[in-house]
Amino acid sequence: MPVRLLSSIATATATRSVRPSTHLLLPRTSKSHFVRSSTIIISTLQPQLQLRYSSRKSNSDDDMGKQQITLKTVKGSRDWAGVDIAVRDKIFEKITTTFKKHGAVSLDTPVFELKEVLAGKYGEDSKLIYDLADQGGEISSLRYDLTVPFARWLAMNPTVTAIKRYHLAKVYRRDQPAVSKGRMREFYQCDFDIAGVYDAMLPDAEIMRITVEILDGLNIGEYTIKLNHRQILDGLFEVCGVPTDKIRPISSAVDKLDKSPWEEVRKEMTEQKGLDPEVADKIGQFVLKKGGRDLLEELQNTESLASNENIKKGLGDMKLLFDYLDIFEVTPKISFDLSLARGLDYYTGVIYEVVTELSAPPAATQGPVIASSSKSKKKSRVNKDDPEADRSDDDTVGVGSIAAGGRYDELVGMFSGKTKIPCVGISFGVDRIYSIIRKRLESSTAVLRSSDVDIYVMAMPEGSGENKNGFLKERMAIAKQLWDGGIKAEFLYKSCPKMQAQFKAAEVSGVPFAVIIFNEQLGLDTVRIKELGLPDGHPEKEGVPVAVKDLVEEIKKRLKVTGGIEQYISRLKLEEVQTAEAATQ
Amino acid sequence: MPVRLLSSIATATATRSVRPSTHLLLPRTSKSHFVRSSTIIISTLQPQLQLRYSSRKSNSDDDMGKQQITLKTVKGSRDWAGVDIAVRDKIFEKITTTFKKHGAVSLDTPVFELKEVLAGKYGEDSKLIYDLADQGGEISSLRYDLTVPFARWLAMNPTVTAIKRYHLAKVYRRDQPAVSKGRMREFYQCDFDIAGVYDAMLPDAEIMRITVEILDGLNIGEYTIKLNHRQILDGLFEVCGVPTDKIRPISSAVDKLDKSPWEEVRKEMTEQKGLDPEVADKIGQFVLKKGGRDLLEELQNTESLASNENIKKGLGDMKLLFDYLDIFEVTPKISFDLSLARGLDYYTGVIYEVVTELSAPPAATQGPVIASSSKSKKKSRVNKDDPEADRSDDDTVGVGSIAAGGRYDELVGMFSGKTKIPCVGISFGVDRIYSIIRKRLESSTAVLRSSDVDIYVMAMPEGSGENKNGFLKERMAIAKQLWDGGIKAEFLYKSCPKMQAQFKAAEVSGVPFAVIIFNEQLGLDTVRIKELGLPDGHPEKEGVPVAVKDLVEEIKKRLKVTGGIEQYISRLKLEEVQTAEAATQ
Repeated sequence: MPVRLLSSIATATATRSVRPSTHLLLPRTSKSHFVRSSTIIISTLQPQLQLRYSSRKSNSDDDMGKQQITLKTVKGSRDWAGVDIAVRDKIFEKITTTFKKHGAVSLDTPVFELKEVLAGKYGEDSKLIYDLADQGGEISSLRYDLTVPFARWLAMNPTVTAIKRYHLAKVYRRDQPAVSKGRMREFYQCDFDIAGVYDAMLPDAEIMRITVEILDGLNIGEYTIKLNHRQILDGLFEVCGVPTDKIRPISSAVDKLDKSPWEEVRKEMTEQKGLDPEVADKIGQFVLKKGGRDLLEELQNTESLASNENIKKGLGDMKLLFDYLDIFEVTPKISFDLSLARGLDYYTGVIYEVVTELSAPPAATQGPVIASSSKSKKKSRVNKDDPEADRSDDDTVGVGSIAAGGRYDELVGMFSGKTKIPCVGISFGVDRIYSIIRKRLESSTAVLRSSDVDIYVMAMPEGSGENKNGFLKERMAIAKQLWDGGIKAEFLYKSCPKMQAQFKAAEVSGVPFAVIIFNEQLGLDTVRIKELGLPDGHPEKEGVPVAVKDLVEEIKKRLKVTGGIEQYISRLKLEEVQTAEAATQ
Repeated sequence: MPVRLLSSIATATATRSVRPSTHLLLPRTSKSHFVRSSTIIISTLQPQLQLRYSSRKSNSDDDMGKQQITLKTVKGSRDWAGVDIAVRDKIFEKITTTFKKHGAVSLDTPVFELKEVLAGKYGEDSKLIYDLADQGGEISSLRYDLTVPFARWLAMNPTVTAIKRYHLAKVYRRDQPAVSKGRMREFYQCDFDIAGVYDAMLPDAEIMRITVEILDGLNIGEYTIKLNHRQILDGLFEVCGVPTDKIRPISSAVDKLDKSPWEEVRKEMTEQKGLDPEVADKIGQFVLKKGGRDLLEELQNTESLASNENIKKGLGDMKLLFDYLDIFEVTPKISFDLSLARGLDYYTGVIYEVVTELSAPPAATQGPVIASSSKSKKKSRVNKDDPEADRSDDDTVGVGSIAAGGRYDELVGMFSGKTKIPCVGISFGVDRIYSIIRKRLESSTAVLRSSDVDIYVMAMPEGSGENKNGFLKERMAIAKQLWDGGIKAEFLYKSCPKMQAQFKAAEVSGVPFAVIIFNEQLGLDTVRIKELGLPDGHPEKEGVPVAVKDLVEEIKKRLKVTGGIEQYISRLKLEEVQTAEAATQ
């Protein structure tokens, strides 16, 4: 049975949308506390309405003066609203709570940095940096990630010699977007980093442990932490005979093995990057290997590798890391994967990437696209060369990794010269995690609301015509009493609304309880507390009378047994989803 | 006795700073749980270190190729770290929790909007908008406030006919900064708005109520909600004989009465804006009035005003609002102030602004600057005409209002043409609220930490030389046990650290409890729980032995009696600060 999504805002239907927009039409669920009579339509993607309107006369000289503007968000960005943002915020909370549990403190840096701070940090990807216009004053750019601002901050604060910091914020990349896969130009990263001089692999092991706590806590489903070590990789390239100046380009080629078969990667190495085919074949013997401690032992016992200093150091680190991961019970999630190379230049030690079944592009896992299907025809129309085109339907693009990071012991030194602080960290791709959880929600039985309100204060109106009384001031006084008591409450902003309108308003927000003034029946000192959505025949269907003076206490008692979004994510188990899927088939 | 601020990061001292930077040297407090031996220096402003370093060779054509870069944040922006951000985040939490208590749902819009969406919304202030560089694709700008993006979203989602939304995010204005007064170019706004067709003044009253709940909850100290109504003001101008085309300029002049005396404002009206001096004097009879319900009655009884439709409508609204504010117990905070006009064009009804004693510029409250004081000489050196100059020391600049808003029934219609949704809202200037609370913290007895960790897991090392054992794996296993139990815990990332080093690390983070492995004394199945910072002679000074298997449960019992930053803000009462101030004098 599909999930019931209650939203206090009803988002636009797609009739005027020019972009694909998934819609869920959701039947009621009978089990829930929150059974309501109306069916609510939610849109999972922001409809990009192409409404045109007469804008006010503009003062500017450019084409702003035109009388028509397009109502949309900037390409590759989106609004977050309704149940989407409620669930997303719960994901944020889960992640940051875990960071704090491990001693992290928060750091917040500006959305823009001086352009020179970002220069020389991202290699070829620097072309994806958003620049601010030069309007006089300093030249600046939007941040590309949260790591470089962290390193800049450490370099600016040389007395900080050790810190565990987290940072949850938006970053900006002028890349080709694939909106439905959570690949955006404006997107959230949630970073946790440990800076300081410590004994080997201890912070690294704790970061792996945090990753598992977070992903298990979110019930993200099956995932794998791919793990490798830059020094092992560099040592392998040395042993195989890769010239020093080709090590980074060859490393980049190896990193594509999650998307492309070995034959293609080999071709890139030999044809594009001019590597000796024999050297490429030697590399191929190693980089396709993956495993756990067994692979570690295999490498340790491979005679040709034993004498390489980089490999010796890397394998020593990995041995220690596996010991620590055993204590933290993380090892079952680990895949020691020699094909993992990571793009960024600044990593110096252990590197990792968390993948799920949605990470790889559909084309890579499902084989070649069958040209006769109408769906694939649509896909083939995506123009990969147009940087402004959306690649949501391009099946050579997957969701990508949901978290990634590694050790970078030299980055702070790039800023400060003197100060060198070893660092290790991880960045969670929260939008991608969200898009995975959203898919799971669509087939779950859980109930979601976007509002947190627990009580709707209502009154049964009396009299008629001029003498009609909606007990507005009494409703306001009760709402105030509840707010004073710390209870989340609302009432309808009408002086004399019908009973039906008040129930409807409570229903739209998925509010679990009503407090109802029935003056004729009960007077003004007693009200009814009514749990909404109880089935006919339930003994408390008509509510329970409670003295107004005891209201806060009585409500607090009842709220203990209800749950909202807070309890949702932890309740969503893979089994539950599978059962739900089976039930609907 | 001054506040003790414990920070797990020690921020840079100002020796290399080129910007004024306030520092607190904080003696220990004897009462606290968290008495530590070291004195920690915190910097309340980010030091702008002018470290120069050799940057990597850059690819760009501009002057990025120079080998020297400046380590700083972009002018008018700042990093948030340490206790600063911990307190700030508590303020955020308090505000958003209150919004949710009143039924608000969250909305998150992109940091940039199409330039044409912002065009024609901010009048003369449009020149303060940050534009993004044109790198191909759409032309966009950083958001200037959160209201216009909200209206754009409402216009894009026409099926949303009613919503209470909140949004906490950074906004951008290329204005002259005054960093120490919380006037930044990048700063946070925290907005709450109610959109929908409702009976008059009900949403407006709830917004006033929310404002009081938030500011009282933060113990911000004395404040006043200045309240006025655009229609009353416009009506007054009509009655006094202001020509229609001069109403907005004259309104802007009136709005300056919080900073300038009437004589100056009158001069602006008559000399700069060409208003008939007689008309100006008539205006003067009204706009200097402030009060409560008494002023409302006075205006209702003023014969010359009675026939103006705008005034009649405005006074009717105000009457209703006062009735509702009485029920919500908000009236004592209200000053009905006819000089309040608000700059933005889009307000159509009630307008308000929350001020504290720090809102007004020092020069306005203390009279003319005495030229002989060295402090005022420094002030006079601030170049008001240089848009890049910082005006922190300019005493014609105050902190400004800490919250402001009003009713804007036409803004959504500006986008959608057809869809007209009446809206009313408020925006909290969180940085300013923070800067007020920070001042109060400096003289309070409360204890602050930036880390949330409750337990530091330690071990007494055994043996010596090669046989030295730091019980690393045991510490890791206990940390894991605590994390599994939901307890915030850390251990030192060293395989065999000295006892002293472990205590020191706990102290720097202000961790309240240690769990200590004493193998020789207790074996490995029993540890000691030790409350840190107990005075000599306390019966539990040496800690209490607890079986490892009962650890989580025992710790949870003990944690109930401690408090961290969570409890701080609500504990900080004005009285407490005053007592503390008296004690140090």
